[in-house]
Amino acid sequence: MTAPLAANVAAAEDTVTVALGERAYDILIGDGLIHGAGAEIAARLPGARAVVVTDETVAGLHLAALRESLAGAGIENEVLTVAAGEASKSFSVYQDLVGHVLEARLERGDVVVALGGGVVGDLAGFVAATVRRGMKFVQVPTTLLAQVDSSVGGKTGINAPQGKNLVGAFYQPALVVADTASLSTLPPRQFASGYAEVVKYGLIDDPKFFGWLERDREAVFAGGQARVSAIATSCKAKARVVAADEREGGVRALLNLGHTFGHALEGATGFSDRLFHGEGVAIGMCQAFRFSARMGLCPPADAERVESHLKAAGLPTRIADIPGDVLAVERLMNLIAQDKKVTRGTLTFVLARGIGKSFIARDIAADDISAFLVDELKK
Amino acid sequence: MTAPLAANVAAAEDTVTVALGERAYDILIGDGLIHGAGAEIAARLPGARAVVVTDETVAGLHLAALRESLAGAGIENEVLTVAAGEASKSFSVYQDLVGHVLEARLERGDVVVALGGGVVGDLAGFVAATVRRGMKFVQVPTTLLAQVDSSVGGKTGINAPQGKNLVGAFYQPALVVADTASLSTLPPRQFASGYAEVVKYGLIDDPKFFGWLERDREAVFAGGQARVSAIATSCKAKARVVAADEREGGVRALLNLGHTFGHALEGATGFSDRLFHGEGVAIGMCQAFRFSARMGLCPPADAERVESHLKAAGLPTRIADIPGDVLAVERLMNLIAQDKKVTRGTLTFVLARGIGKSFIARDIAADDISAFLVDELKK
Ligand SMILES: NC(=O)c1ccc[n+]([C@@H]2O[C@H](COP(=O)([O-])OP(=O)(O)OC[C@H]3O[C@@H](n4cnc5c(N)ncnc54)[C@H](O)[C@@H]3O)[C@@H](O)[C@H]2O)c1
Ligand SMILES: NC(=O)c1ccc[n+]([C@@H]2O[C@H](COP(=O)([O-])OP(=O)(O)OC[C@H]3O[C@@H](n4cnc5c(N)ncnc54)[C@H](O)[C@@H]3O)[C@@H](O)[C@H]2O)c1
Ligand SMILES: [Zn+2]
Ligand SMILES: [Zn+2]
Repeated sequence: MTAPLAANVAAAEDTVTVALGERAYDILIGDGLIHGAGAEIAARLPGARAVVVTDETVAGLHLAALRESLAGAGIENEVLTVAAGEASKSFSVYQDLVGHVLEARLERGDVVVALGGGVVGDLAGFVAATVRRGMKFVQVPTTLLAQVDSSVGGKTGINAPQGKNLVGAFYQPALVVADTASLSTLPPRQFASGYAEVVKYGLIDDPKFFGWLERDREAVFAGGQARVSAIATSCKAKARVVAADEREGGVRALLNLGHTFGHALEGATGFSDRLFHGEGVAIGMCQAFRFSARMGLCPPADAERVESHLKAAGLPTRIADIPGDVLAVERLMNLIAQDKKVTRGTLTFVLARGIGKSFIARDIAADDISAFLVDELKK
Repeated sequence: MTAPLAANVAAAEDTVTVALGERAYDILIGDGLIHGAGAEIAARLPGARAVVVTDETVAGLHLAALRESLAGAGIENEVLTVAAGEASKSFSVYQDLVGHVLEARLERGDVVVALGGGVVGDLAGFVAATVRRGMKFVQVPTTLLAQVDSSVGGKTGINAPQGKNLVGAFYQPALVVADTASLSTLPPRQFASGYAEVVKYGLIDDPKFFGWLERDREAVFAGGQARVSAIATSCKAKARVVAADEREGGVRALLNLGHTFGHALEGATGFSDRLFHGEGVAIGMCQAFRFSARMGLCPPADAERVESHLKAAGLPTRIADIPGDVLAVERLMNLIAQDKKVTRGTLTFVLARGIGKSFIARDIAADDISAFLVDELKK
């Protein structure tokens, strides 16, 4: 438990190892690490050439620093820039990138470096997974969401017309370099959205971490050591779950806390700027706790603590906080049913017995969820 | 070593297990096994629904039997049919299949069944590998090449405008059902082409197997027990190499015996019907042995044995056997250089010290290969 530090104090670094046997890799977390990314890559992949995949926004902010560091380490590199935003996670952009990587005559030992948020990471990771049946892959995540969530765990992929993330591969990177200073250029709403995933790790099984966030949230937002700690703790939590369940057969489902409700809300708002992913997760986690309290599983005071913490972080916590048209219950239930297999009128949800006491609840009656959502929409 | 049997004698069955830990799977080999495919799938993947991917030619010959067997085992199934031929291993056909599998609302526990040759297997395997980041996959190979080579080992993928098999994934099936009777509808030239890969396993490290093939080749072509034995021995050989080197870091390269020369010849003939893959491999293996003999590595008599066996099987053994225009040395050398990294004027090749004594030779001078090819073109 660190005390808040001013953003300009030299921050410590942390390394989290994702223990996946011969596919194990390090996540380096620290202030300014982008300047050392080239050297870290060269040390792990001697002789590799690189293609950097990034988006237009990030290219304007952090590409020069990364390229300088690659060049400094003697890594020949080319850059492929896609449009910023979810629409780049498409078949056509994927195919285009694959073509460019092949034109650059990269081999299996060469590396695809993803510089950007979750969109760039998922897309570039799928390219790395599939060109020549698998090249090397390095993530340099530049959003908080990517640093604590999408860059860890090896899920890569693109969207299909039938839905998000429906095409992809489990493919682990050789290295993740999370420069916490790169988050300083992130719009505050994006930072807050990623923060919902940080809070999630506390709510799943680490009540101490949640307590620390309650006290030191402002320091995490400010940057420096507290931010490094929060990100490292989050990565450790995710790495632990991933190592136990790489391909999502069991406990990995706990990481979906808040995500069933959240996805339904994202779907109902058309995956638009009305609701960022982490914002949907924030509302979804509040709902998971409120639903748990309503079912007598969780103390109502815990549900209130969750809500007031997320609210203080600038996140929405109720459906009414979403700007624009009111959503209909039937639409939400349809989206939930689409997301989950409804088996004989029951659903599987991540619920909680309290802060840090989340669990996978099977056999939740769809009717209980509908009734709950009717009340939620009145709030 | 079995004696040749008439084709109508009830053939034994054989099972080869590919030992890949938690990804281990069985290859079932036998006459008429397609009729039991449904039951074998249902036993391994209880409750799974299926999408069968096949091509137009195979659909007309073997689809009804497979569907009957799936239905008999209570496996709900849909069929997706692509055009026969290499052109179906494309981005657009891949994307189309992915869309159809998603429309059919298949889940990760459901199965993609490939019914056909290597084209269908590679394509359907890549779909299975990537839809929802990995569904179940079963191969029902119907060409000799697919039964002894492409269905074993987990290489899946498609072609890119930049070259063959440049996009894909290593993805192991849950089961391979090789019905040796299904090969009876195969055009003889296709059967012979696949037979080159059977011979390859003898030449790599199994001189006894090669000797048996010399004696019993006609029985293998006729069907029945000898065919089952030849295919099972081939699958065992490939399974052994794959288990030792799943992602092609080392010994798996031995499987490329004859393939560097062969690919160059395929490239030079535009991957057309002028030269089937196995035909290119047949010439390539003869060349690998002739080159080895020329370099004093291998007894010339062994090179002659290889040539006369392949010739007796109806396969081409020299560049002059390829119908159409004569090929140029420079073009072949360029294609070889493209295929291989040329490091300081040297190349890596699979050569032989004799029948069943293949090895990976590094540092082969590109000049020696050119001079050899000049002579080869005179033959
Ligand atoms: N693979 C996984 O396990 C996993 C987990 C969660 C989410 N995801 C995926 O991640 C994606 C969302 O990720 P995201 O929230 O990072 O979105 P994103 O990549 O679209 O980034 C959000 C926005 O921030 C901009 N940006 C990125 N870094 C910046 C910086 N340092 N300064 C200023 N602007 C910056 C981007 O250009 C973009 O406009 C979704 O596609 C989601 O499906 C994947
Ligand atoms: N994945 C691997 O490890 C691997 C290994 C070797 C080759 N391959 C790939 O395999 C492909 C070649 O495989 P192939 O030779 O089986 O080609 P193929 O799949 O095109 O089949 C050859 C032809 O035979 C027809 N056919 C298939 N089964 C038949 C049957 N029982 N009766 C009558 N006709 C039948 C097909 O319709 C096709 O026209 C290439 O794309 C190659 O890259 C992959
Ligand atoms: Zn999330
Ligand atoms: Zn081959």
